[in-house]
Amino acid sequence: MTSTLTGVIPPVCTPMTPGGEVDAASLVRLVDHLLGGGVDALFVLGSSSEVAYLTDARRRTVLDTVAGHVAGQVPVLAGVIDMTTPRVLEHARAAAAAGASALVATAPFYARTHPAEIRTHFRTIAAEGGLPVYAYDLPVSVHTKLEADLLLELAGEGTLAGVKDSSGDDGGLRRVLMGRTTTGGATSFSVLTGSEVTVDSALWMGADGVVPGLGNVDPHGYVRLYRAAARGDWEAARAEQERLVRLFEMVRVGGSRMGAGSSGLGAFKAALHLRGVIDCPVTAVPQVPLDAEEAGRVGKLLAAAGLL
Amino acid sequence: MTSTLTGVIPPVCTPMTPGGEVDAASLVRLVDHLLGGGVDALFVLGSSSEVAYLTDARRRTVLDTVAGHVAGQVPVLAGVIDMTTPRVLEHARAAAAAGASALVATAPFYARTHPAEIRTHFRTIAAEGGLPVYAYDLPVSVHTKLEADLLLELAGEGTLAGVKDSSGDDGGLRRVLMGRTTTGGATSFSVLTGSEVTVDSALWMGADGVVPGLGNVDPHGYVRLYRAAARGDWEAARAEQERLVRLFEMVRVGGSRMGAGSSGLGAFKAALHLRGVIDCPVTAVPQVPLDAEEAGRVGKLLAAAGLL
Amino acid sequence: MTSTLTGVIPPVCTPMTPGGEVDAASLVRLVDHLLGGGVDALFVLGSSSEVAYLTDARRRTVLDTVAGHVAGQVPVLAGVIDMTTPRVLEHARAAAAAGASALVATAPFYARTHPAEIRTHFRTIAAEGGLPVYAYDLPVSVHTKLEADLLLELAGEGTLAGVKDSSGDDGGLRRVLMGRTTTGGATSFSVLTGSEVTVDSALWMGADGVVPGLGNVDPHGYVRLYRAAARGDWEAARAEQERLVRLFEMVRVGGSRMGAGSSGLGAFKAALHLRGVIDCPVTAVPQVPLDAEEAGRVGKLLAAAGLL
Amino acid sequence: MTSTLTGVIPPVCTPMTPGGEVDAASLVRLVDHLLGGGVDALFVLGSSSEVAYLTDARRRTVLDTVAGHVAGQVPVLAGVIDMTTPRVLEHARAAAAAGASALVATAPFYARTHPAEIRTHFRTIAAEGGLPVYAYDLPVSVHTKLEADLLLELAGEGTLAGVKDSSGDDGGLRRVLMGRTTTGGATSFSVLTGSEVTVDSALWMGADGVVPGLGNVDPHGYVRLYRAAARGDWEAARAEQERLVRLFEMVRVGGSRMGAGSSGLGAFKAALHLRGVIDCPVTAVPQVPLDAEEAGRVGKLLAAAGLL
Repeated sequence: MTSTLTGVIPPVCTPMTPGGEVDAASLVRLVDHLLGGGVDALFVLGSSSEVAYLTDARRRTVLDTVAGHVAGQVPVLAGVIDMTTPRVLEHARAAAAAGASALVATAPFYARTHPAEIRTHFRTIAAEGGLPVYAYDLPVSVHTKLEADLLLELAGEGTLAGVKDSSGDDGGLRRVLMGRTTTGGATSFSVLTGSEVTVDSALWMGADGVVPGLGNVDPHGYVRLYRAAARGDWEAARAEQERLVRLFEMVRVGGSRMGAGSSGLGAFKAALHLRGVIDCPVTAVPQVPLDAEEAGRVGKLLAAAGLL
Repeated sequence: MTSTLTGVIPPVCTPMTPGGEVDAASLVRLVDHLLGGGVDALFVLGSSSEVAYLTDARRRTVLDTVAGHVAGQVPVLAGVIDMTTPRVLEHARAAAAAGASALVATAPFYARTHPAEIRTHFRTIAAEGGLPVYAYDLPVSVHTKLEADLLLELAGEGTLAGVKDSSGDDGGLRRVLMGRTTTGGATSFSVLTGSEVTVDSALWMGADGVVPGLGNVDPHGYVRLYRAAARGDWEAARAEQERLVRLFEMVRVGGSRMGAGSSGLGAFKAALHLRGVIDCPVTAVPQVPLDAEEAGRVGKLLAAAGLL
Repeated sequence: MTSTLTGVIPPVCTPMTPGGEVDAASLVRLVDHLLGGGVDALFVLGSSSEVAYLTDARRRTVLDTVAGHVAGQVPVLAGVIDMTTPRVLEHARAAAAAGASALVATAPFYARTHPAEIRTHFRTIAAEGGLPVYAYDLPVSVHTKLEADLLLELAGEGTLAGVKDSSGDDGGLRRVLMGRTTTGGATSFSVLTGSEVTVDSALWMGADGVVPGLGNVDPHGYVRLYRAAARGDWEAARAEQERLVRLFEMVRVGGSRMGAGSSGLGAFKAALHLRGVIDCPVTAVPQVPLDAEEAGRVGKLLAAAGLL
Repeated sequence: MTSTLTGVIPPVCTPMTPGGEVDAASLVRLVDHLLGGGVDALFVLGSSSEVAYLTDARRRTVLDTVAGHVAGQVPVLAGVIDMTTPRVLEHARAAAAAGASALVATAPFYARTHPAEIRTHFRTIAAEGGLPVYAYDLPVSVHTKLEADLLLELAGEGTLAGVKDSSGDDGGLRRVLMGRTTTGGATSFSVLTGSEVTVDSALWMGADGVVPGLGNVDPHGYVRLYRAAARGDWEAARAEQERLVRLFEMVRVGGSRMGAGSSGLGAFKAALHLRGVIDCPVTAVPQVPLDAEEAGRVGKLLAAAGLL
């Protein structure tokens, strides 16, 4: 991974058995579904992978299964999501051993942190992790926003290879995009949006790619969207994006009956199950599962999007 | 642990070598320092133990060192701090294997959660963890408050053996204390305050004990405070508490130069080093360390409290 | 008001007609009810007065009605709740004209503020408001916490005459209480708790008084509590406090059907209506009103407390 | 205002004298500067107008000055920013009396509110305010996000004429934009972005216009941007937007020395002063003013943008 990462890089869901184990056969089918959709890389062990719910052994199963099956066809980025640097470094070692192409790390969480400590955190991971490091900006989980100035500093000095921006703050995204063009050392800094519903506008602003959870369900759609933008056909990109915005309504299917994460991940898995990609739509404990009526509404959204 | 837990239960700091490994010899001295101070139980792998910074191997070293050295003299509670149920259960297995007396778990974090999911989380840990479960209410880290109604429900049904309340919300603490007296099944529910500076008033309201980070530095003080309250000498309890409030100012020594956690933990370790209990005051990466001037101020507070 | 304010200072509810006008006759009866209960001062135009919902004309009606009826029997503190200094100063002028004894002001809100600006805010009000100034610490509304160091600085220089602490942070309260004893200029700084359910412990820590919304409903109870503490009969104080904690459950009667403020204020007014003090329990637009079942539960709590 | 509001609608700054009074002569010059730039409407008494700092009398001066000077050339929207419905209605009466074209209102703040109460709030303003109502979504000040479903419901029933979205959440903005196209009654619902730095992308998504604080400084730039987008020349729109993004850096000139609002408003006023539009760059008490070095940096950004 010496060049800047671009394109569609879905955060791969983790199919599970009813008992909560990783369903490796379904995971392989999901990877084939994504590669068949034309994606440019894969991101395993992110939030959409229910990484927060996976034991270390299950994380390794995911890494080994995906890296082994992909076998170098596309880069495989590995989330190393944990509270602080020493624990993140343990995950980094496992990722490197499994053959991952790069690491994706958040700022420290649970620990009350400080910008100086976030800086040391990423620098240490870059120095000791053995792989390129992408910052994962997800304030809804981490409760810290990675500010543009901090990202640009870490990009300029070569600590970070890129950022996955799931903050929803497209003004901040633009500051990063415009800041890197004027910083010599930052030209290889890859800026990826994690927002499923503003991909066309993020690409318009100069983003290099997208990491869409909904891309599990419809990788072809996001690939069409990215390619339309890449060839300058912005009208086609917008039409595709708007279709995906309507499909994305599935994440709200659980309403106030469960956490927002459970609703979204439950919907993605229900959709993958309905599309025949994975065997079982179960999500990890203690998430509230979708009920039959909610799964039925996911099916209607799939049908409306031409995916069933 | 069939009876209600009471008294002073310090959350044991984790002494480290300059390289970040657990300094087991210093840890043993710290345990002796605490037991010599007359504490009633020990809590390892909590926030004051820098649990967020400890790899699983280092967590096991702490567990084995402390449980082995204590050898049943007092109960040893083990923090099982992680993002969600499956990961917490892994820590629970390690704690049980090491001989811990009980588990201390937070609500899920990083994952966006829902009260129904918090309920399932604690019920699953209680059912599968093999040890009594204490809830750890620490909104500053977990970003969820454990409400009194939820705690009382889980207490009443036997899921929880107690709560460590580090929320700073003494109105909520009182709701729990008064709620349990009118719920038959909750009479064995232990309510512990995690606030170093309102112990006398928490005990006055009916709390069973205290889990004070500052108790690492001055266990004798907290034991005197608890015993004074237990015998009804509230004036003596208050005088002791006020001395400890002044000593607690050390947690602010790092000011805005570092995270609040780094300042507090750095101060506790500097104090333990100055008192000759541990070999090295280092805190884990990526925390900003105290500088000499800041450590000097810790020393002055120790001297003012009669501890140097 | 040259001496330190002490005792029970209820934040006076604002009775309204069904059309939302101030019901001056009911307000006078409420004042008599409070004075008859033995309170030491009155606080009008605070949050419990629905100040946020009162037009300036209605605020003046409240001021004139209460100040006129009290006629100097006890001090009348006036809330000057508004977004920033210039608007607060307008309310200060109205309060001074009506004969108020002191002003109660929050930090700026709506405007994104900074500690240096909070300092200037209180200094300007003290310099130009013409009356002693009490800081009102209510982070749930203002979204800023008034830190102990800031309060002590403003107390020490004579800017603030006191603080009403409704933050629920009794550790912070204690820092202020202990800080003022060591600052020469701060000996006349009055520290009042706004928490209905930890009055005994706040007084135990050294607080001078209490500003309890629930004191509208049961002023006699809070006066008994305060007097018991003042004469050193802490057991009696605690028993009274625990009775009031049970009564305070009324604030949750509206559950998740309305805002927490609407539920609490609706309950206080329903209770005052049931006790025959005010004519109409209506709260201001746009608050969701209590329904009959919810008002019935307020009545049951009153009966259980011996107040019906 | 029967048709949907479109185009560039700057939130007009409020020039002040050194003593804090409204500088009406400078305000008139500022209005001429904006009209000369080709803007489509004006928004007075919004956050950029320092509305939170203006007494009611000063608010009226602003309304009378601007409405009188504009004399119907373009619509004048009036902010009615206050804590709750009854106080907002007072401002609405003043705005109607001054000849404003529409009202701009936030959700309740300071009061802890509930979606049912927000609904009642806007319905009451629409029913009694006598003018079309625009919702103002500004979570950084109001601490409540106006969710897409709520906005679409209020749009569909005719309560709201539009929304000014200053939330920075462009995913939510898109939900509103796409939601309204499928709701029959919402076709006249105007969606305006308040984000200075993502105007091209908001227009690309279908937004009707922009309310840019920075438009005070460079109205011509925003008008060029809007017109380029309107004629489908998106490359030109982006180039203009990127120039404005660089100019917008001025809002950070005060750094951590003051509140974010003070820095931004101070910079806008410094720029207007440097450009010769207003007599004095002062901001209202208690905001920290820019110092000479900070104002100098604003000047450099103006020069770099070709505005000096």
